[in-house]
Amino acid sequence: MSDASPPIEEFEIFADRLADVAAVETMKRFRKGGPVFNKAGIWFDPVTDADREAERMQRRMINAVYPKHGIIGEEFGAENEGAPYRWVLDPVDGTRSFVCGAATWATLIALEEDTRPILSIIDQPFTKERWRGVGGKTRYSRGRKKTICRTSGVTALAKARVSTTDPRSISYFTASEAKLFDEVARKAQVTRFSLDAYAYCLLALGEMDLVIETGMHRHDYSALIPIVEGAGGVITNWLGEPVGTRERASVAAAATPELHAEVLDYLKDYG
Amino acid sequence: MSDASPPIEEFEIFADRLADVAAVETMKRFRKGGPVFNKAGIWFDPVTDADREAERMQRRMINAVYPKHGIIGEEFGAENEGAPYRWVLDPVDGTRSFVCGAATWATLIALEEDTRPILSIIDQPFTKERWRGVGGKTRYSRGRKKTICRTSGVTALAKARVSTTDPRSISYFTASEAKLFDEVARKAQVTRFSLDAYAYCLLALGEMDLVIETGMHRHDYSALIPIVEGAGGVITNWLGEPVGTRERASVAAAATPELHAEVLDYLKDYG
Repeated sequence: MSDASPPIEEFEIFADRLADVAAVETMKRFRKGGPVFNKAGIWFDPVTDADREAERMQRRMINAVYPKHGIIGEEFGAENEGAPYRWVLDPVDGTRSFVCGAATWATLIALEEDTRPILSIIDQPFTKERWRGVGGKTRYSRGRKKTICRTSGVTALAKARVSTTDPRSISYFTASEAKLFDEVARKAQVTRFSLDAYAYCLLALGEMDLVIETGMHRHDYSALIPIVEGAGGVITNWLGEPVGTRERASVAAAATPELHAEVLDYLKDYG
Repeated sequence: MSDASPPIEEFEIFADRLADVAAVETMKRFRKGGPVFNKAGIWFDPVTDADREAERMQRRMINAVYPKHGIIGEEFGAENEGAPYRWVLDPVDGTRSFVCGAATWATLIALEEDTRPILSIIDQPFTKERWRGVGGKTRYSRGRKKTICRTSGVTALAKARVSTTDPRSISYFTASEAKLFDEVARKAQVTRFSLDAYAYCLLALGEMDLVIETGMHRHDYSALIPIVEGAGGVITNWLGEPVGTRERASVAAAATPELHAEVLDYLKDYG
């Protein structure tokens, strides 16, 4: 098989193996007690350990199978960043959920071709849920259950279920962004917090209608794009540009173009 | 078998059946699409339907097996409320999570003897997790995996993982309560939102350290008490009294008495 341009199906199978490997490392440490000093006085932080060990294993696999590919990961930075194919890795997105025992963290894997994500996987190994975005489709699997994802079709903010990871101005939002989110959320039907990437997975399933965030890094957002778009959703930054156009990456993901346009009217001054 | 004072083990088995019955009704409707008008123009709200159908089935079972027992439920009010034994039912706690597809809602069942909960079950049927609090112990099961629950042992707010369902002043908190929660949360290690009763289950598992809420009803809090106390945690209102002493029920649940005392110092003026 030529390394120059293998079929996307090969990358897909490989991405599944990357998710499987991460799951072994994360599940070893999930709900095994929070961060503690052990008897030798050494600090044990399960989420950092899970993140590092998983990413280390994934990098080893990529280096072995696709030595010319680039890698961008949360824990160990960039490797061969200018390569035409780049893997973008975040073994534990939602570290706060992980450390609180809530199964709403996820493993994010994206493959970018010339900076555009062409396939991605979002995996939640505790609930055994996996989303795969590739070739303009998003597929969901849980054990033997497999479905094609479709966003909800909700077109108006007044009927929307909206999510952001933290509505306060102490984590991601500035004070004015927090105020703006609050304004949008008050017009919506229901608001849920603390879901990180999992919120976009619910959007793909048609169960959430709108996700608004900011302060995102490439490893946070790259995998979201094929998942949301493959399910029929729209995902851009707050100005309507491709996510990552600006240095401080904001995200507005919506079930429909109509809902996206309505919300961008609020957000565009803050992008 | 005498109906007057059957052994607690009999109630326990019965409570498990009440949870099983609720799971059938809730899982039929979870992630089957949000509230919509159907083709006949009739409004379909899956969470209300799940709540009602489950509670109806549960009441029928209680009336058949324990006709002298009282019932308090969210959907159909109180029945024979003054009876020495009372079942307190909430088939879908966390309706907002349910309607957004997030598997952090739960079915709550408590049995009260003279207003004090003597056993309870919290069930999450999507993840197949069940917590049982009875006889001063809390047990967790997921499939074949069974464990005894112990809270984390965290004694200081600065090391605590803290949760509340909504930190804003538009749902549960008044403006001053929201400000107070924010103050407490800023001193803590990690904060997670939108977990409803599931946060107390994570506390029992030793994965969360502190849960602070207000505006709770009997069907929201009764089942929490045996689960938190049986795992070694402390649960009172914001004044340190038994939950439900005041009409507007507040809750402060902590992993240890030390952490509980530290937090009550902040909360007591607002109880």
